[in-house]
Amino acid sequence: MNELLRQIADLVGKAGVLTGEDVRSRQSGWAQTGANEAAAIVRPASTAELAEVLKLCSAAGQPVVPLGGGTGLVDGAHAMAQEIQLSTERMTAIEELDVAGSTMTVQAGVPLQAAQDKAAEAGLALPVDFGARGSATIGGAVSTNAGGNAVIRYGMMREQVLGLEAVLADGTVVTSMNRMLKNNAGYDLKQLFIGTEGTLGIVTRVVLRLRPAMRSQSTAFVAVDNFEKIPHLLKQCGGRLGGTMSAFEVMWSDFYDTILDANPKHSAPVPQAFPYYVLIEATGGDQDSDQQRFEDTLAAAMEDELIADAAIAGGGAQRNAFWEIRDDIATLVKTLFPPIAFDISLPISDADTYVQTVREKLEKNWPDVFRCTTFGHLGDSNIHFVMTIGDAAAEERAAAMEIVYEALKPFGGSISAEHGIGLEKRAYLHCSRSDTELQLMRSLKDLLDPQGILNPGKVL
Amino acid sequence: MNELLRQIADLVGKAGVLTGEDVRSRQSGWAQTGANEAAAIVRPASTAELAEVLKLCSAAGQPVVPLGGGTGLVDGAHAMAQEIQLSTERMTAIEELDVAGSTMTVQAGVPLQAAQDKAAEAGLALPVDFGARGSATIGGAVSTNAGGNAVIRYGMMREQVLGLEAVLADGTVVTSMNRMLKNNAGYDLKQLFIGTEGTLGIVTRVVLRLRPAMRSQSTAFVAVDNFEKIPHLLKQCGGRLGGTMSAFEVMWSDFYDTILDANPKHSAPVPQAFPYYVLIEATGGDQDSDQQRFEDTLAAAMEDELIADAAIAGGGAQRNAFWEIRDDIATLVKTLFPPIAFDISLPISDADTYVQTVREKLEKNWPDVFRCTTFGHLGDSNIHFVMTIGDAAAEERAAAMEIVYEALKPFGGSISAEHGIGLEKRAYLHCSRSDTELQLMRSLKDLLDPQGILNPGKVL
Repeated sequence: MNELLRQIADLVGKAGVLTGEDVRSRQSGWAQTGANEAAAIVRPASTAELAEVLKLCSAAGQPVVPLGGGTGLVDGAHAMAQEIQLSTERMTAIEELDVAGSTMTVQAGVPLQAAQDKAAEAGLALPVDFGARGSATIGGAVSTNAGGNAVIRYGMMREQVLGLEAVLADGTVVTSMNRMLKNNAGYDLKQLFIGTEGTLGIVTRVVLRLRPAMRSQSTAFVAVDNFEKIPHLLKQCGGRLGGTMSAFEVMWSDFYDTILDANPKHSAPVPQAFPYYVLIEATGGDQDSDQQRFEDTLAAAMEDELIADAAIAGGGAQRNAFWEIRDDIATLVKTLFPPIAFDISLPISDADTYVQTVREKLEKNWPDVFRCTTFGHLGDSNIHFVMTIGDAAAEERAAAMEIVYEALKPFGGSISAEHGIGLEKRAYLHCSRSDTELQLMRSLKDLLDPQGILNPGKVL
Repeated sequence: MNELLRQIADLVGKAGVLTGEDVRSRQSGWAQTGANEAAAIVRPASTAELAEVLKLCSAAGQPVVPLGGGTGLVDGAHAMAQEIQLSTERMTAIEELDVAGSTMTVQAGVPLQAAQDKAAEAGLALPVDFGARGSATIGGAVSTNAGGNAVIRYGMMREQVLGLEAVLADGTVVTSMNRMLKNNAGYDLKQLFIGTEGTLGIVTRVVLRLRPAMRSQSTAFVAVDNFEKIPHLLKQCGGRLGGTMSAFEVMWSDFYDTILDANPKHSAPVPQAFPYYVLIEATGGDQDSDQQRFEDTLAAAMEDELIADAAIAGGGAQRNAFWEIRDDIATLVKTLFPPIAFDISLPISDADTYVQTVREKLEKNWPDVFRCTTFGHLGDSNIHFVMTIGDAAAEERAAAMEIVYEALKPFGGSISAEHGIGLEKRAYLHCSRSDTELQLMRSLKDLLDPQGILNPGKVL
């Protein structure tokens, strides 16, 4: 290892290799506890350097863990003592902003927010957005196919990627920097590197699709008295708002009550008297007429008895107050401590049945300590489930996870809607994917990384 | 071959195997000339049958050409005398329409239009649309990643596919029927089968994402006096229309003049006095307010001198008349006979420079006979180029194609925006993809189809 690190330092310079205490304090996951154990963090300054590093590692059979902003939620960038973390933190150039073509070409280490800000300066938008925007990198967001708050309108990170460059395990640079919305010239190779969590290659550069910046925003917080109405509400709003709905966030009453009861800074937009709440947002081209349409849409939903109560944000401050309730994960985690968090998806019509089934099972197993809240991007079929079973042992926590994931099977649900698999969910992947699928994944892995040096043990 | 066909007939029944004259008259491509030479057309009635057929073919080393609706434009389903066509025409069930979840599960042989109609009955939409909708199948549209008229708003076929099932060359059935907008549980295997033209597997079933049906439509035909204004117009309309623009079709004057001069059924929406014309369409949630916004948007563009003249459709009849000009390929092909048609893409800012360069080169080579028209989904970077160089020999036609494709290289353009590669463009794939990319494609092909029996000679 020392000899290898010396060779790597010759390539990337002394500042390009961190060891010892410089590594221990580094974060490689949002919920990391304890020190970073990686043997070293290598920080190439370019694709060429990164490729040379991988050639050396490949020759030495050295396992490598790609590291973006260190904000992942499933231990996807966790490194063990014999592993090297390969960080893109020195690859932060925004190489090109093509305003006419609505594309931006960036290096993998550019933080999401930096790319968003750059787009905004030109009247454009990079619409994938989530809490970790300040630290999360484009490379990480692409590798994990990140989702977030506007997927219902704009899709996941996958849909924002027109082209990319990735380096294979053996150091081969695959440059596939397409800049067009349409390109059917052969296999769409970028798909191999999107959402595969750095197990098939390391993303080094990305061509992002940008959208026109929206000029209006309308937000409401509504209450619903029956789960069956929620899919109808979603569909009706989708149609009446002409496809401009950008968020449809559902909160079960256990979530709403927990947040409002535990954190006095919030005030309730609608009374705490209903089983379900939905934060609905639309963005468009003209504030006055969009707001009118938004209000008409909600009035129609009220008349059709799809919603039982509604508060419409009168401006940005109120809008932010609505979102602060939805986003107050800090309060959630404090109240349900120690938390176990889930990021699952299943068809919307099955969501409430599933939630009830799982809650009953968990309650039965841990009657005194079980508490749970349910919320999520339900317009995208995505539920975040935060629960606690108190200070349970690791085996008990694993048993609880097994219950949550196993119950997804009859619904064809997914154990990971947007966070990925990493180390954390690998043992449960079989709950969502068949043996045939897993074999096909494994054969792709063997093809592209026959030595298994890229992010070993993650996903598969 | 006879023994193999007998075994196949045992599996799929006598009606499941066509030979002789029943094959000769069958169409396997939109522009097919001459008889279909395939040894047989095999028509399994289910995924299980299709898988068994592939097992037999795999054991016999028998090449197989997947056949959808036979409307492809690049000889992607062309079969030679020693090849069997595997048709999905008996797999036409719409298995499920989940209105609440906005998904539809179909077998591969369902025609696009049948799926669109079924969605429409439920107030939903399958927004990928193109001329061959009546015959083209979902399986074919997925395998070729079809595009069409609303890509700027809804994406290509790839973006409409949530899950799919495909059969590998060896008969392995990969069932990956995800029904959720978000699913990051492991590699997104469906991407292997979307747009790979049946070379990696045969798509047998698909879960489609549906959208809310739109309730309004606004259409305009505008004239632009300078190409540089077109990207600005695109961006401005995108923003002011709040993301509801569904078509941005550009026609160069050579196209507009050719159609209007040659076909008296059309009347000119705006005078034939400009170098560029754009058909702009938006769809939304409310006809009155959407129309008002659409007209305001165009008025602003006029004021900003982005457009020089405009006609706004007063209703459905006028809207259709606008589109009939854009879609009058029959007149184009008759006037520029025999035609050579292109489907290329490149960044919008480079489009006019590219077109001028290519036209000059072609004009210089074939000064007396060269004629050309330029139009396309420029909002998606896609140009359709229809030209003629008269009754030129095959080598001359190939030379002309070489000029068109080679000129794309400096712009990073694509030789196929939406039609695919098939047999027709295989020789030119290197104009759009690097050796490294081609090698990676080839290794995927070798992994999934080591004998090379699936659609041999197509794409690669």
